[in-house]
Amino acid sequence: MDRDHLPRFTAAAVQAAPVYLDPAATVDKAVALIAEAAAGGAELVVFPEVFVPGYPYWNWTMNPVQGSPWFERLQRTSVDVPGPHVDTLRAAARRHGVVLVIGVNERAAHSLGVLYNTLLTIGPDGELLGVHRKLVPTWAEKLTWTGGDGSSLVVHDTPVGPLGALACGENTNTLARFALLAQGELVHASCYIALPVAPADYDMADAIAVRTAAHSFEGKVFSVVACSTVSPEIVDAIAGDDEELRKQFTRPRSALSGIFGPDGRPVTEPLVDDEGIVYGEIDLARCIQPKQMHDIVGHYNRFDVFRLEVDNRPRPPVTFTAPTAAPTAPAAPEEDV
Amino acid sequence: MDRDHLPRFTAAAVQAAPVYLDPAATVDKAVALIAEAAAGGAELVVFPEVFVPGYPYWNWTMNPVQGSPWFERLQRTSVDVPGPHVDTLRAAARRHGVVLVIGVNERAAHSLGVLYNTLLTIGPDGELLGVHRKLVPTWAEKLTWTGGDGSSLVVHDTPVGPLGALACGENTNTLARFALLAQGELVHASCYIALPVAPADYDMADAIAVRTAAHSFEGKVFSVVACSTVSPEIVDAIAGDDEELRKQFTRPRSALSGIFGPDGRPVTEPLVDDEGIVYGEIDLARCIQPKQMHDIVGHYNRFDVFRLEVDNRPRPPVTFTAPTAAPTAPAAPEEDV
Amino acid sequence: MDRDHLPRFTAAAVQAAPVYLDPAATVDKAVALIAEAAAGGAELVVFPEVFVPGYPYWNWTMNPVQGSPWFERLQRTSVDVPGPHVDTLRAAARRHGVVLVIGVNERAAHSLGVLYNTLLTIGPDGELLGVHRKLVPTWAEKLTWTGGDGSSLVVHDTPVGPLGALACGENTNTLARFALLAQGELVHASCYIALPVAPADYDMADAIAVRTAAHSFEGKVFSVVACSTVSPEIVDAIAGDDEELRKQFTRPRSALSGIFGPDGRPVTEPLVDDEGIVYGEIDLARCIQPKQMHDIVGHYNRFDVFRLEVDNRPRPPVTFTAPTAAPTAPAAPEEDV
Amino acid sequence: MDRDHLPRFTAAAVQAAPVYLDPAATVDKAVALIAEAAAGGAELVVFPEVFVPGYPYWNWTMNPVQGSPWFERLQRTSVDVPGPHVDTLRAAARRHGVVLVIGVNERAAHSLGVLYNTLLTIGPDGELLGVHRKLVPTWAEKLTWTGGDGSSLVVHDTPVGPLGALACGENTNTLARFALLAQGELVHASCYIALPVAPADYDMADAIAVRTAAHSFEGKVFSVVACSTVSPEIVDAIAGDDEELRKQFTRPRSALSGIFGPDGRPVTEPLVDDEGIVYGEIDLARCIQPKQMHDIVGHYNRFDVFRLEVDNRPRPPVTFTAPTAAPTAPAAPEEDV
Amino acid sequence: MDRDHLPRFTAAAVQAAPVYLDPAATVDKAVALIAEAAAGGAELVVFPEVFVPGYPYWNWTMNPVQGSPWFERLQRTSVDVPGPHVDTLRAAARRHGVVLVIGVNERAAHSLGVLYNTLLTIGPDGELLGVHRKLVPTWAEKLTWTGGDGSSLVVHDTPVGPLGALACGENTNTLARFALLAQGELVHASCYIALPVAPADYDMADAIAVRTAAHSFEGKVFSVVACSTVSPEIVDAIAGDDEELRKQFTRPRSALSGIFGPDGRPVTEPLVDDEGIVYGEIDLARCIQPKQMHDIVGHYNRFDVFRLEVDNRPRPPVTFTAPTAAPTAPAAPEEDV
Amino acid sequence: MDRDHLPRFTAAAVQAAPVYLDPAATVDKAVALIAEAAAGGAELVVFPEVFVPGYPYWNWTMNPVQGSPWFERLQRTSVDVPGPHVDTLRAAARRHGVVLVIGVNERAAHSLGVLYNTLLTIGPDGELLGVHRKLVPTWAEKLTWTGGDGSSLVVHDTPVGPLGALACGENTNTLARFALLAQGELVHASCYIALPVAPADYDMADAIAVRTAAHSFEGKVFSVVACSTVSPEIVDAIAGDDEELRKQFTRPRSALSGIFGPDGRPVTEPLVDDEGIVYGEIDLARCIQPKQMHDIVGHYNRFDVFRLEVDNRPRPPVTFTAPTAAPTAPAAPEEDV
Repeated sequence: MDRDHLPRFTAAAVQAAPVYLDPAATVDKAVALIAEAAAGGAELVVFPEVFVPGYPYWNWTMNPVQGSPWFERLQRTSVDVPGPHVDTLRAAARRHGVVLVIGVNERAAHSLGVLYNTLLTIGPDGELLGVHRKLVPTWAEKLTWTGGDGSSLVVHDTPVGPLGALACGENTNTLARFALLAQGELVHASCYIALPVAPADYDMADAIAVRTAAHSFEGKVFSVVACSTVSPEIVDAIAGDDEELRKQFTRPRSALSGIFGPDGRPVTEPLVDDEGIVYGEIDLARCIQPKQMHDIVGHYNRFDVFRLEVDNRPRPPVTFTAPTAAPTAPAAPEEDV
Repeated sequence: MDRDHLPRFTAAAVQAAPVYLDPAATVDKAVALIAEAAAGGAELVVFPEVFVPGYPYWNWTMNPVQGSPWFERLQRTSVDVPGPHVDTLRAAARRHGVVLVIGVNERAAHSLGVLYNTLLTIGPDGELLGVHRKLVPTWAEKLTWTGGDGSSLVVHDTPVGPLGALACGENTNTLARFALLAQGELVHASCYIALPVAPADYDMADAIAVRTAAHSFEGKVFSVVACSTVSPEIVDAIAGDDEELRKQFTRPRSALSGIFGPDGRPVTEPLVDDEGIVYGEIDLARCIQPKQMHDIVGHYNRFDVFRLEVDNRPRPPVTFTAPTAAPTAPAAPEEDV
Repeated sequence: MDRDHLPRFTAAAVQAAPVYLDPAATVDKAVALIAEAAAGGAELVVFPEVFVPGYPYWNWTMNPVQGSPWFERLQRTSVDVPGPHVDTLRAAARRHGVVLVIGVNERAAHSLGVLYNTLLTIGPDGELLGVHRKLVPTWAEKLTWTGGDGSSLVVHDTPVGPLGALACGENTNTLARFALLAQGELVHASCYIALPVAPADYDMADAIAVRTAAHSFEGKVFSVVACSTVSPEIVDAIAGDDEELRKQFTRPRSALSGIFGPDGRPVTEPLVDDEGIVYGEIDLARCIQPKQMHDIVGHYNRFDVFRLEVDNRPRPPVTFTAPTAAPTAPAAPEEDV
Repeated sequence: MDRDHLPRFTAAAVQAAPVYLDPAATVDKAVALIAEAAAGGAELVVFPEVFVPGYPYWNWTMNPVQGSPWFERLQRTSVDVPGPHVDTLRAAARRHGVVLVIGVNERAAHSLGVLYNTLLTIGPDGELLGVHRKLVPTWAEKLTWTGGDGSSLVVHDTPVGPLGALACGENTNTLARFALLAQGELVHASCYIALPVAPADYDMADAIAVRTAAHSFEGKVFSVVACSTVSPEIVDAIAGDDEELRKQFTRPRSALSGIFGPDGRPVTEPLVDDEGIVYGEIDLARCIQPKQMHDIVGHYNRFDVFRLEVDNRPRPPVTFTAPTAAPTAPAAPEEDV
Repeated sequence: MDRDHLPRFTAAAVQAAPVYLDPAATVDKAVALIAEAAAGGAELVVFPEVFVPGYPYWNWTMNPVQGSPWFERLQRTSVDVPGPHVDTLRAAARRHGVVLVIGVNERAAHSLGVLYNTLLTIGPDGELLGVHRKLVPTWAEKLTWTGGDGSSLVVHDTPVGPLGALACGENTNTLARFALLAQGELVHASCYIALPVAPADYDMADAIAVRTAAHSFEGKVFSVVACSTVSPEIVDAIAGDDEELRKQFTRPRSALSGIFGPDGRPVTEPLVDDEGIVYGEIDLARCIQPKQMHDIVGHYNRFDVFRLEVDNRPRPPVTFTAPTAAPTAPAAPEEDV
Repeated sequence: MDRDHLPRFTAAAVQAAPVYLDPAATVDKAVALIAEAAAGGAELVVFPEVFVPGYPYWNWTMNPVQGSPWFERLQRTSVDVPGPHVDTLRAAARRHGVVLVIGVNERAAHSLGVLYNTLLTIGPDGELLGVHRKLVPTWAEKLTWTGGDGSSLVVHDTPVGPLGALACGENTNTLARFALLAQGELVHASCYIALPVAPADYDMADAIAVRTAAHSFEGKVFSVVACSTVSPEIVDAIAGDDEELRKQFTRPRSALSGIFGPDGRPVTEPLVDDEGIVYGEIDLARCIQPKQMHDIVGHYNRFDVFRLEVDNRPRPPVTFTAPTAAPTAPAAPEEDV
């Protein structure tokens, strides 16, 4: 980032449903939304968590034995990184000159049992800048996803400024958040999924808002939060004829997307539940003033007292001393970026 | 804490103004408020930041040279820890059998230039459990206070559960907050001061609420937040005849006190601006369920990736190999607790 | 271990059901079974995984939202380590002079959201030798348990020889198994739970046997495998009136206990499904001959080619430079043993 | 491997005896068996360990001085890699379009004293994909063979999926097995020899089965295990007129070949002792479901705790800084693949 | 330093005002003054504290809320280290072959809220030898600057001898001064700013002189002290039409520059208040005799009694185990030099 | 010190010559001067270094062999601590109710070769508060005195406030000075001797003044500096008929006594060369304001960066495990105070 010319730009948070468990069609939908957002002036477009090809709701609505067959279905419709679906997304980012953050189900090269909840960050030149694998899947999600390692906790230098991204509950992880802020993050992408099947007293829209506000306020950064929606197609797929479950899937306040400023307040009105694109103006110079009073990665912290060490080494299942040409080599550092 | 009998109790957050710069009178007022809160059923009573004998507003309303004489005035009205004013507070806690958290201006034993923004934690038997010195004074406060060291970042075992406390902007410090949560904090005392003299677009009540909600939600803990108010006496003392300044001191939404639950929502309606005591019912068993999904000090974190080391060693100006009997010996470990 | 007098002794594998979710009654039952096994001549008594106070079957038979209230119930009936229930078990081991391996649900000192699937190893003098926390809960179990760190992968020196223990699926973990063998393990305790609710084509008895045989054969060690059973009380608690589920809980070949020799064969006939105690004679001298041909921790391995590093450092949520007296301090090294 | 089209195919395990110590004739026999297996539909054909030109039984039946002349005989009948015999095998694989794994006695280019127990992996286009030299000869075998280095522990990308191979006792080596699994192995070739001359209580068929089942179950992979048989010719050669020895050579349950699935069970009935070809259907998609529960190279392991480093660098007797043209240059990296 | 040829040279202390808040113009002015000093024979040229682009006087003359907008203005006109303004200064040092010490406002790479009060030390070959960040901003300065860590307390080996530098009040810090002397410092650069807005009874010229004399006398070293002046442009910018404040800015004895010898006396007459360059002859051999009597880093100290440990580790907000390519990585060791 | 009532008092610095090498007479003179000072209102009276019975000038004017007999003369006229001369001084302090600091030649109990340059601090009740032995004798003084250990670097709690004392060149020792300031010193006694025989360009009065000003300014403390004078009697004794030497002994500006304030300026005009008593008013509250800006033992230091450890353990020549009754036991801890 050229600190003499802090970026000013329009950001777009896409609130949408995937074409469920159809990666090609979902990528096509994403490409169309990217085009729309770019036409709306956006230079940064953020999509929901695991947008391609959708969220494994069965983990919440079925018991594990019931949900087990869905695992293979998701495995077969997940995305290779790198791979053709990623190439399509990269081409769209390049075509429209936008920075893109989008969630995918990634299948690992080295094991058929490993799926990651992954956020891709793609530059306006189509470069795949970052592959962040969610560190800890949340509760029922553990039935599906493997946690990533610390190697992808990286803030990327992009034309819209230093950009970090976390998935869903990671935005509650104090230390993960700080690890991004400490790298100079000024724009934070938070990617969520609509969760109508949460416990009864859970207000997902509020739960998204309080975390987004808190991160923006604490770090004096802009946050772009994008959440998926639940399409009738998803309800059919997961709930089938179960009326009670169908009803649960229509529960209001299950999704919220928007843009929040460094004072913790929304820049524009957030979008709740409905599909759509929320636009917001981001001027990174607005981050300077509030940091004068509380800069938790600077003068308002005490790094003589607190020392946070992030082990960002990749954690492959085996490490070879010399290079190897295994067909499905374990996750190596090079593969993460 | 006996985990088989998680505490259930009433907490009281005191929103009040000190008898400005009069430590004895302010301690008397505190004692009366403790009695009132205990009569209201409270087993935990939390007072505002630097309640005794008040907040150095001159740092915000005067330039440093103008404000300089006030430093000596505050130094002369500050509290020795341990000392007679602390003894009075300890006796009140013992008399009413309450856990007490209260902010004081503490003057150091070893230097006339050192004042700390200190939170005292006192047990229902009158024991002085903790002396937490604010790590980093916020911006203009740096003109008055010296930052503490890491030795007092301690969660205390009390009859109302594992209790931690942070002062004002420390509740924005991601790492300080986590250092308490990681010790098993379940009840968090946040002590603030009314800040009507902040920048124009600052909503102090909101700024308190967002942080309190965030800490409670992130850590799945109860928070008791207590904020001071601005009395006419304070306005006279600081603003004198300056009408503009007098008007600024009456700005609304400068103070908020209340009790927040582990879902990030207030347990009872918070109190804004007015003096009073807010009561709330706390049942620590309510912390179990939300930790099932996101426990950032447990299964939802990755301590293989994140290693937070807290240097909690005292930092005296000099360390002697053998004991010394200096009249105003530097802050030693024993002295902190 | 005195290598001039390799231990010869009788081992007992206890196949039994807990008094479901009643820790005190289950411990009483364990004490009675220890007495019975000791009367039967046993010097080593191995109990099932999480025997106290039972296995969270709801994770497999309910969806997570349905199962959620059970979490708190388990939390409240879990065991503090150290604590009174452990003391009772230690007293029984001392009274009967047996080495004891028993699984418990352990609740962490530092967080109400952390339960561990823990194996306790207790010496014949009542000393708590080891606290092994299952590294990775298996699939649906992730809804309940937090994984342990590497600090408890310890082979203990006991009167019955070098003794290691792993829980359930850990006996599939190639590297965990090797980490014990490499410490000189000669007696391996495998603790399982009856799993009638597994996928349809899963034969739990076979799955236990193949792993036990493999570990014994690969390492040339004796294995004592103990599995829980499903009592009518458990069926009532979990299945209620759901007839299909009740039927599933009676599925045969859901449990197997026994003693296997270094050739991979059972020493005595294993016990399948029924409650009971299996006894077997163990003569550690029988481990010598087979190691002459294949000693994978010795001459039959290639430690110039393979280097396995086990990070056995404790992973507390926070580390303090100086000692601290926090009431519920994070898991420290001392606490693990 | 194209993860969108997981291979389904027929595998063949060849159980047969060599034309003892006659490499050309044995290769001819192998070529005929390859043709037969291909005609039977096989796309993967696995032969026994050191099939060409046979196993040095004298190490077990004679004392070393007695057996010594046999060493030279084996040296003279062993195989150069690359060399004409290998070319014949490559041509057969290409002709029939099969993936081929076959054991040979390999003589080293650089020393007349070095023989390796080597497994060749050849692709359906005739390419020599891998040359795996058994890492540790088992016990008496040490009188004949030199151990290989770690450079050949490679899983190969083949049309039948990611394919690894180990020889005999290596299938007991926890770390060698894991080093293959960690590379994404889904098809495992295990090559054995009939061992009627083992200790009295040794059941070779069982010993093969338990290991094969364990590797398949642990890794959730298919195993193709091929074992040699003992021909009358071999009995004559080794036992001569020694009746007791002749009798021992006819001991039953000395050989077992077959195909095992990812649940640890045989796909078809294994073949014991007799010559023949066992066929089995392999569908790699069957590896997905069981990995959902236990994926030891993925979510069921703890690579923060266990770090396995494989030194796969070649270990030639001398390394030259500049190229050399020595006629029998030491095994260089290029030569291994 | 070649101790056989102790340096003798001319030093220049530049007393001047910046082109206020215009970094490019101020650097141009600095380059011109370097040329002038070099023409005057100087081999060491010392500039005032934060010369580029000037001192934040608003901290003293306004209250923090009033002064707040100036923070952003300073942030935008501060200097990247390394960066183009530093390159210009390095080129000037190289062109004229002088050792250069100059103060700048440095903005941190990792946070928009972090400004350092930094002294750059540049060698005659243009190398950036040192980046010293003032450890503790003085009182009102805390509203603007973040304190540095101990990593830059370095005495540099230069052609004019072992050279250390401290900013303003740091020359009062007994331990900081000793930390430089103890590294063999013989030439000490003290950089100050004119402070006409200090409390009424403060004589800044005296305050500079007493500290400079004391450090030179105590350490037996030469000191080159350079102080800024207040230009009419600064008075206009800060005081505007406030006559009282304008008057205060003309207060005499607010600045002093000069060269002091190891006996604590000025080598030449110091310059008070006016712009100009003070030259002085420095012969490091003059440091030998006075050290014969009192050498506080040698025979006149008692290092059996006093042990001063300087923690000179960098204190970044986060530490990564492996290298990272974050766009605005936290202050790393490499960045300091 | 009662921080609510900071002492205000008159201090007296005595500039006088001893009755050379006559301890009893010198003590009598001291007693008379104490009476005079007390009559003048002084509550603190400071005498020169080694006032009793005088300074060993021979070390500077004779070569060591010439000066050797004087050592015994000084040994015979030195003071036992405790002892009758000390008792006389204690009685005087008690009689006049003054705090007394006075230098003596102390002879050690355990060796005839050990003389210390000692400062006694005596309370107004006659208690011997402190015995500080000069740590390092200056240059030629090393021919006479043994250095003390760190055990006497103590600031004493007296009615005139926290009082420290250093002898002559110790006031140049950065670390010794800091060790006192860090204990909360607010009144510093500096004891010197007139040194007319120093190198030609040495101005002793200046050298005293610059150090006294520096310590007061740096620490924001009051300093009372007392220096001896050279009486004709001393000139006779040391110079005899050597006219050049006699002339040297009359060199002006060899002595300076006075009181300096926390701004580094003299409170009253210092006395140069002549005998007399300088009085000065000390109000410790004057230390508060300047510490607001620079408090080097508080907020203006960085104790995370600098850690000064003082080994204040006594260093006797031998340490006995059990008590001993040796007549001239080595200096034990108890004996020092």
